[in-house]
Amino acid sequence: MSETVTVCEVGPRDGLQMAKTIMPTAVKARWIAAIAAAGVPEIEVGSFVPPKLIPQMADTAEIVREAVRLPGVQIVALAPNLRGAQNAYEAGAHRISVPVSVSEGHSRANLNRTPAEQVAEVARVVAWVRAQPRAMQVEGACSTAFGCSIDGVVPTAAVVRVASGLAEAGVDSVGLADTVGYGHPAQIKDVVRAVRAAIGPRLEGLHLHDTMGLGLANALAGLEEGIRSFDSALAGLGGCPFAPGASGNIVTEDLVFMLESMGFSTGIDLEKLIAARAILHAGLPAEPMHGNVPKAGIPRTYHPAGRAAA
Amino acid sequence: MSETVTVCEVGPRDGLQMAKTIMPTAVKARWIAAIAAAGVPEIEVGSFVPPKLIPQMADTAEIVREAVRLPGVQIVALAPNLRGAQNAYEAGAHRISVPVSVSEGHSRANLNRTPAEQVAEVARVVAWVRAQPRAMQVEGACSTAFGCSIDGVVPTAAVVRVASGLAEAGVDSVGLADTVGYGHPAQIKDVVRAVRAAIGPRLEGLHLHDTMGLGLANALAGLEEGIRSFDSALAGLGGCPFAPGASGNIVTEDLVFMLESMGFSTGIDLEKLIAARAILHAGLPAEPMHGNVPKAGIPRTYHPAGRAAA
Repeated sequence: MSETVTVCEVGPRDGLQMAKTIMPTAVKARWIAAIAAAGVPEIEVGSFVPPKLIPQMADTAEIVREAVRLPGVQIVALAPNLRGAQNAYEAGAHRISVPVSVSEGHSRANLNRTPAEQVAEVARVVAWVRAQPRAMQVEGACSTAFGCSIDGVVPTAAVVRVASGLAEAGVDSVGLADTVGYGHPAQIKDVVRAVRAAIGPRLEGLHLHDTMGLGLANALAGLEEGIRSFDSALAGLGGCPFAPGASGNIVTEDLVFMLESMGFSTGIDLEKLIAARAILHAGLPAEPMHGNVPKAGIPRTYHPAGRAAA
Repeated sequence: MSETVTVCEVGPRDGLQMAKTIMPTAVKARWIAAIAAAGVPEIEVGSFVPPKLIPQMADTAEIVREAVRLPGVQIVALAPNLRGAQNAYEAGAHRISVPVSVSEGHSRANLNRTPAEQVAEVARVVAWVRAQPRAMQVEGACSTAFGCSIDGVVPTAAVVRVASGLAEAGVDSVGLADTVGYGHPAQIKDVVRAVRAAIGPRLEGLHLHDTMGLGLANALAGLEEGIRSFDSALAGLGGCPFAPGASGNIVTEDLVFMLESMGFSTGIDLEKLIAARAILHAGLPAEPMHGNVPKAGIPRTYHPAGRAAA
């Protein structure tokens, strides 16, 4: 029996919101269905933000309504505030991810609030969600937890403060995001240890970017600290507005290859996952596609733990 | 005081031998000088193989003779046999790296010898080198130590057998090479532990390829097992003949960024290192240039351990 690691595909949200063109809704739905059919257990399909700000996310309600009918997959949506949470609930999302920037500069630029004000908003979101008839999970996502392109170094104590605030606000889980991809493995370990010491097993996931090429090394560092939930994007979609040419989220295909090779079970069929790249490419032909495993081909030494256990 | 990690730049050897065109000797010499000027402590500058087999390496003797005059840098050359070792000695190389493929299939295809026959050749090389008036170090490099595109899975016991043979042959150091880039972090740790148990501190370096995108994660795994010497190539030059489109050796720029960020000292000036890419590009304009740090730019959160200690 191999241990399970949960991969949450965030390409349709974090990947697409950086794209230069808009993926048609029908293609997006087909793409999400293909990812789910490959066995990916969780997909973050969109963001309930004003369409004026991020036009790529204008169809999120429609996408969520369609995606929640897919069998066996948790559908996640980003919701930056109570209004977004209410829209996500109405569309039927299984989980929302509410971001709180740890760094003041990013918080003001991205949410026009201080971190403390945004933690208070999360508390309002949790209170509202708990009062509804249907259950919906709430994840608090600590953005810029490993560095900030505006404020620079982010102290571990600041991450612990925000994570503790989120735990007190009653979120189901807390995630740590290397939003700009400045983190390194030793830092990942330090911050994970410090946050876990403060909030225990409520710390669940890591959201990593490959800006500096350290994405999978950082994932390994998290894995070694007991993290069993990782966000990633097909083809490493995403990029970083502050780093032209940089790749985006860690590449789902390469992450799955690493995890399964190491003996963890993801439940994901790597060949089907790679096949889903064609839909992404059809929907966004100008977008660069990252990922080494798809380019090199799956070697015949690959023995997926998930498939062997099945 | 930060701990030192030794980076050996192998682009001029392992990178260039895969290139579609030949880098002019004068450009190659300038490129090597620029890498040395960035503080890289070791450079593998070429390979003493028949020019008919690898035309890119035809100027190796000339390149070695020039490179050994650069101050403060160890000049390494690959030598597959006694003849190559003699030529390297004559040119003034500080160290030779003699490859032994762990897998039978790769050994026959690459060297036309069994692993045991090649270990015997290494013993002849060591005996000859020790009888010369000038000291020259001999590294035994275990190729295909983590997988083989011909034989598939490579058993750890086979790596231990070859590494032990090399130690008995009297080499100064043993390196483990993931020649085709099939290795994963758990495997790196297992094999490093097993080889160290057999030959102790004579196990020195790891030579990793980024074929599957796991290169830096594998380096981290080695680092955590106490490895303090890594081969890498500027711009991840190299590729793999069995994986079209795959990147080659791990990227020196990203490796140095990771190591220095984690508090290790490499002695390398990352800005100067990145500047050396321009010479590589001038010499091989058609070759793809990998590396995330050069594309994203060095973030201002970067605090190199080496520079702080200087």
